[in-house]
Amino acid sequence: MSSYSVSFYPENIIVMIDENDSLLYAINLAGIPVKASCSGRGTCGSCGIIIKQGQVKLAVGAVPDQRYQGKEFLPACRCFPLSNLVVELPTESKLTGQQVLLDNSFGEETETLNIYSKNTLCDMFPFDSPVYRKITIVIPEPSLNDPIDDLSRLNRSIHKATGMEKLRPTMGLLRILPDLLRRGGWKITISLAGIPGSEFTEVDFVEPGCENDRYFGLAVDIGTTTVVAQLVDLESGTVTSAKGAFNKQASFGDDVITRIIYASEHGVIVLQEAILDTINELIEEMLEEISIKPSDIKAAVCAGNTTMTHVLLGLDPSNIRLEPYTPVANKFPAMRAARAGLNIYNQAWVHIAPGTASYMGGDITAGLLVTGMVFADDLSLFIDIGTNGEMVLGNKEWLVSCACSAGPAFEGWGIKHGMRACPGAIERVVISQDGQKVKYDTVGNSPPMGICGSGLIDALSWLYKSGIIDRTGSMIKDPNKQRVRETVSGREFVLAWAGETGNKADIYLSDAEIKNLIRSKAAVYAGIRTMLHMVGLPVEAISRVYIAGGFGRQINIRAAINIGMLPDIPLEKYTYIGNSAVKGARLALLSGQARELFYNIADKITYLELSNGNLFMDEFISALFIPHTELSLFPTVEPEAGL
Amino acid sequence: MSSYSVSFYPENIIVMIDENDSLLYAINLAGIPVKASCSGRGTCGSCGIIIKQGQVKLAVGAVPDQRYQGKEFLPACRCFPLSNLVVELPTESKLTGQQVLLDNSFGEETETLNIYSKNTLCDMFPFDSPVYRKITIVIPEPSLNDPIDDLSRLNRSIHKATGMEKLRPTMGLLRILPDLLRRGGWKITISLAGIPGSEFTEVDFVEPGCENDRYFGLAVDIGTTTVVAQLVDLESGTVTSAKGAFNKQASFGDDVITRIIYASEHGVIVLQEAILDTINELIEEMLEEISIKPSDIKAAVCAGNTTMTHVLLGLDPSNIRLEPYTPVANKFPAMRAARAGLNIYNQAWVHIAPGTASYMGGDITAGLLVTGMVFADDLSLFIDIGTNGEMVLGNKEWLVSCACSAGPAFEGWGIKHGMRACPGAIERVVISQDGQKVKYDTVGNSPPMGICGSGLIDALSWLYKSGIIDRTGSMIKDPNKQRVRETVSGREFVLAWAGETGNKADIYLSDAEIKNLIRSKAAVYAGIRTMLHMVGLPVEAISRVYIAGGFGRQINIRAAINIGMLPDIPLEKYTYIGNSAVKGARLALLSGQARELFYNIADKITYLELSNGNLFMDEFISALFIPHTELSLFPTVEPEAGL
Repeated sequence: MSSYSVSFYPENIIVMIDENDSLLYAINLAGIPVKASCSGRGTCGSCGIIIKQGQVKLAVGAVPDQRYQGKEFLPACRCFPLSNLVVELPTESKLTGQQVLLDNSFGEETETLNIYSKNTLCDMFPFDSPVYRKITIVIPEPSLNDPIDDLSRLNRSIHKATGMEKLRPTMGLLRILPDLLRRGGWKITISLAGIPGSEFTEVDFVEPGCENDRYFGLAVDIGTTTVVAQLVDLESGTVTSAKGAFNKQASFGDDVITRIIYASEHGVIVLQEAILDTINELIEEMLEEISIKPSDIKAAVCAGNTTMTHVLLGLDPSNIRLEPYTPVANKFPAMRAARAGLNIYNQAWVHIAPGTASYMGGDITAGLLVTGMVFADDLSLFIDIGTNGEMVLGNKEWLVSCACSAGPAFEGWGIKHGMRACPGAIERVVISQDGQKVKYDTVGNSPPMGICGSGLIDALSWLYKSGIIDRTGSMIKDPNKQRVRETVSGREFVLAWAGETGNKADIYLSDAEIKNLIRSKAAVYAGIRTMLHMVGLPVEAISRVYIAGGFGRQINIRAAINIGMLPDIPLEKYTYIGNSAVKGARLALLSGQARELFYNIADKITYLELSNGNLFMDEFISALFIPHTELSLFPTVEPEAGL
Repeated sequence: MSSYSVSFYPENIIVMIDENDSLLYAINLAGIPVKASCSGRGTCGSCGIIIKQGQVKLAVGAVPDQRYQGKEFLPACRCFPLSNLVVELPTESKLTGQQVLLDNSFGEETETLNIYSKNTLCDMFPFDSPVYRKITIVIPEPSLNDPIDDLSRLNRSIHKATGMEKLRPTMGLLRILPDLLRRGGWKITISLAGIPGSEFTEVDFVEPGCENDRYFGLAVDIGTTTVVAQLVDLESGTVTSAKGAFNKQASFGDDVITRIIYASEHGVIVLQEAILDTINELIEEMLEEISIKPSDIKAAVCAGNTTMTHVLLGLDPSNIRLEPYTPVANKFPAMRAARAGLNIYNQAWVHIAPGTASYMGGDITAGLLVTGMVFADDLSLFIDIGTNGEMVLGNKEWLVSCACSAGPAFEGWGIKHGMRACPGAIERVVISQDGQKVKYDTVGNSPPMGICGSGLIDALSWLYKSGIIDRTGSMIKDPNKQRVRETVSGREFVLAWAGETGNKADIYLSDAEIKNLIRSKAAVYAGIRTMLHMVGLPVEAISRVYIAGGFGRQINIRAAINIGMLPDIPLEKYTYIGNSAVKGARLALLSGQARELFYNIADKITYLELSNGNLFMDEFISALFIPHTELSLFPTVEPEAGL
C-alpha cells in the first residue's frame, strides 16, 4: 500500500496517509476543525476541499461542488490520494475561521449577566451559598475543659460561622490539619466545596491565617453545535469572562443522532476527547484573559443534553437513539475535575446537570432555573430550540415536557445557505407584496453570506404573505415572480443575488428546504399542543412563554406566530431568555437554593415520549400547513394583511 | 567514617552500617522484629544481642546483661561496631519466635465465633445486611411505557429486592452498565457495598447472569501490642480464618506514648508502614489458608485505639500525648483499600471504628457492640485492659468512660519476667500460707519462661494472703521465707527456681515490680470509682461487668477482687468477653444495625479526662493499698482467709 503526504495550506501542517485513507481522515489527523455534518458518509457535501497540488481519485458517485465561482470543491470524505498533495480547506468548510466566529450572543451574555448583584442573582435566587467558598475564622483553642478533636473543633467553628452541618473532610486535610491549626495560631482560612448531588460540604483545604486569593467557578453549556463557558468570580458573583466555540464533535456529525451512531461504531472516546478539548480550550482562553491559573477554578457546573452529557462522561450513548430510548443514567455520580478531564483545580467537584430522559437533558434542567416557572402559580411554557427542540409546560405544581425532532434547521444546518448568526448572516427579511423585492438585515451589516434561524422564520412568513408559497409551502409557478426559478431539483427562491453577496453566489431557498422548515415548525407547535392536550388546557391558558436557545439572535415572535410555529397569544407574554443553560449553570454555582432545584427538578418533570401513541402525529399533520389546518387556532394571523 | 558489615546469625542477613549506627539500627535494617520497649533509648534492656564475632563498643553507662546463664546480652541500641560483626538476636529479644508465638486466644476466637449462625450474630444483632453483598436479580426490560434510564431501572430493582433506597453507582459501573444489562439478558448479579459512615450503598459491580463466587470481609483489631484479624464469609457469616501477630510497631516502643514520641520525632510514615505490614502479612496467611485471592476480600472493618488508628491512616498523633490531648479526628473520611494500603480488593471500602477521645478509641466502640450494654436498662461496666486501660459505664440511656494509665504491666511488659500468655507463661499461682511453696500452672504445661497477666494478679493476691507483702505492697523481711531475697536493687520473691524453668534462670518479682502492679490495679479501681462518682451511684449498682482484652487468658476474677482491682460484687456478675474489638468489627461487617451503632455510639459516650481535677487522684491514692484504704468497699475480702 502506498503512503502519501498531505500538506495543508495555509496551515502548513503535513500528515502522512495511506491510499485508502480519505482526505477527511487527513484533516482530522491534522487537527483542523472541519464541517462534516454527515459524519463522513458523503451525503452532506460540507467538507469541501480545494486540491492545490497533486492528484486524487474520487469515490464512485462523488462529484465536485461548483457552488462557489472559480473554485472546485471536492468532498474530502470521498477523496483519496494518488500522489503527495497540497490541500486547502476553504473557510466555508472550516468549523472555525471567519464564517464561524463566535455567536454574538456570547458577548451579550457577559453584559447581561453582570447585572446580577451579589445579593440577587435574578428575582428568584439569593446569592447565598456559592458552590465553593473560602471563609476565615478564629477557632477557640483546645483546653482540658474543651478537648474535642481537631476535626470536630473545626467543624463546630464552621457551623457557627456558616450554619453548615454536614461537613466532610478529605483524608489529605486530616494529615495536615493539626499543624495548620497550630501554625496559624487558630486563625485559618477554610475552603468549602459542595459535593455534587449530596447534602454534604467538603472541607477541601485549610490555610493558616487570612488568605485573600480570588477563586472562580466554571459554568458550561455543552450544546451539540456550540459550547459556551463562563468564569464566575465566586466571591462577587460576577462573570469575569465568557467564551464560546463550536463543539469539536461537529467533525463527527451535525446532530446527536449522527454522533451517537459514530460512538456506537467507533466507541465514545474520540467524541469525549473532542468535547473535552473544546471545553479546555475555552478555559485556557478565559484563564489567559483574566490572568489566573487553572487551579484558581475551584468548581464546575456543566449542563448539556443527555447525549452530550453521556459523551462528556464517556458513557455509551447507543441506547439513546434506539427504542425505547433509554439513557445509561439521568443522574450522575460525583466526580472531581481530574477524573472528568477538565483542566481546572484537580480536586474541584464537577457538577453535572441531571436530565429527565434521553431527549430532555441537563441543559433544560439548568434552563428551567432561569425561568422561575417552577415557583409560578400560572402556566408557563419553556421552549429551547437548538440543535434539538425541547419544551416544558407547567407551574409550581407540575411540569410536563416533550422533545420534538425539530432538527437543526433553525440553526441553519441542512439548509444549503443556512448558517448561524455570525457576521453576514441574514437575520431579518421583508419581501414586498409582489414578491419582487427583498429587504434584509445581516449580522454586523456585512454582505450576506447565508441566512440564520431568525432570517429563515422571517423569510417563511413573508414568502407566504407575498403569495410565493401556498399553505403547504409549495412554491407557486408565476412567470412574473423573477426570484422564483426552476432547477432540475425543483423551484428555488433567490433571497440575494450573487452580485450582492459576500461570497459572490446566489443565496436562495429551495422548495425542499422550505418543506423542511415547515416540518420543523410543525413539530414545535404539535409538541406544544400535545402537552396542552395531556393536561387538558387550551393554548390561551399559557401566561408566559420563555424562548431559549440557539436561534442565534432573537427571533421575530410575530413571524413565528404567522408561520404557525408558536401559539397565537399576545406578544407581551413572550420573553426571550437567550442561553438559559449557561445562565442556569451559573445560578447553580452561586445559589444554594438554585443548586437544590438543579439536582431535584429533573425528577419532577413528566416526560411525554411523542413517538408513543398517535396524538402527536395527528397534531403534527395538522400543523404542516401555514399557519395550521385549524385556522381558529391563529385568530390574529391574516394571510393577506401586512405585518 | 568507617562502615562495617553486620551478619545476623542464624538468619544469614547481612547489612552495612556506619560506626555511629547502633546495632538496633542494624537489626531494623535487616528487618528482624525486635523488642525495643523504650524505642532505643537504652532504658528497657529488651533488645539484648549476643556478639558471635568481631568487636563492639558500648555507649557510656551501658552494661551487659547477665540474666541468662552463660550468655552475655549487650543492649543493641547502645552498641556500636568496631569491626565487621556476626550477631545473634536471641529468642528472648525477638518479637516473633518460640517465646512469642500467637496468643492462644487467637485460636479460641475462631471456635467461639463460629457459633454465630446466619440469623443471629449474638443476642442483639440480626445478620441482616452484610457490609458487602451480592444479589442476583431479574430486571424488567425497558419499553416505551417504561423507558426510565438504565441506572434508575437498576436502582428500582435493587430497592424491590432489598428495600435499599440510597444507592450510588460508581462512574466505572455506568460505563459498562448498558452493555452488561443487555448482555446478561436483564438477569444480573449486583455487588452492593456500604459506604463508610454514610447512609448510602454503592453499586460497586454488576455481572451478567448469576454469579456464585464467595466473598469475604476482613475484621481487624489493631492493638498496640498485638493485631488480630479474621476473614468472615459474608454469605454465611462464619469466620473462615483468624490470625494474630505482634504489631511490628513494637520495635518503636511498647506503648502508645513511646510510639507517639517516635512519630513526632521521625514522622508517622515508618510506623504506618509497620502496621500495614503487620496487617497485610496476616491477610496473606489467611488467603493462603483458605485459598482465595486478595480481590475476594470486599470490605474491611478496622478497630484500634486512637493512636493506632491515627498511625494506620498516616495522621499525626503528636497532640494525643500533649495536654489537652486532642486527636486529629475521632471520625474518619471514607477510604478505599487501595488508598488505605490494605492488600485486598482495591475498591473495597475500609470502615474505621470512630473513637471518642485520645484515650477512648475505636476498639472500645467496637467492643461495646459485643456487650449489648447500650440496649440494657440496668447498669453495666465494660473494662478493656490491654496495653492501655479503658472503661465504660452505662446503660441504654447514657454512657460515661475513662482511660486509666494502667500501663502494660498486666500484659507482662515492664516486668522483668513478665510475658504474654504464650507457652511457658505462668498463668495461675497459689502460694502456701507460710510463703515457702509456690504452685503454678503454665500455658501449654511447658516449663515456666515467665509470668503473664492472670499469673501476676494471682501472685499479687497470694503474696498478700501469705503475708509476704504488706498492704502497701512492700515485702516483709523474714528470714524464714526463703523465697524472699535481698539484692542491691531491693527485695525479690522467687516464683520459680532456675532448676524448674525453661530458660534455666530464676523467675522472680521484685519489690519495685509489685509496686508497679499495685499502681496499675489502683488506676483501674480508681477509674471505676471516679465514673461511679460522676453519676452518683455506688459500686453495688453495677449489674454486669464485661472484661475484655489483653490479659491473655481469663483472669481469676476472685484474685482481682482480692487485690482491689475489680469491684467487690458477686462473681456471677462478671463476664469475660475476650477480644471484643475484633468481635465488634465482625458484627459491623455482618449487621446493618450493628454498623449503625458502630458509627454513632462513640458520639454518645461522655469521656472523663481523669487528669482534669482531683477526684481521680484522691481515688487513686486510696486504692494504693491492698485491697483498698476503705476496707468497707471490699466486704468479702478477708486477708487471712483462704481463697
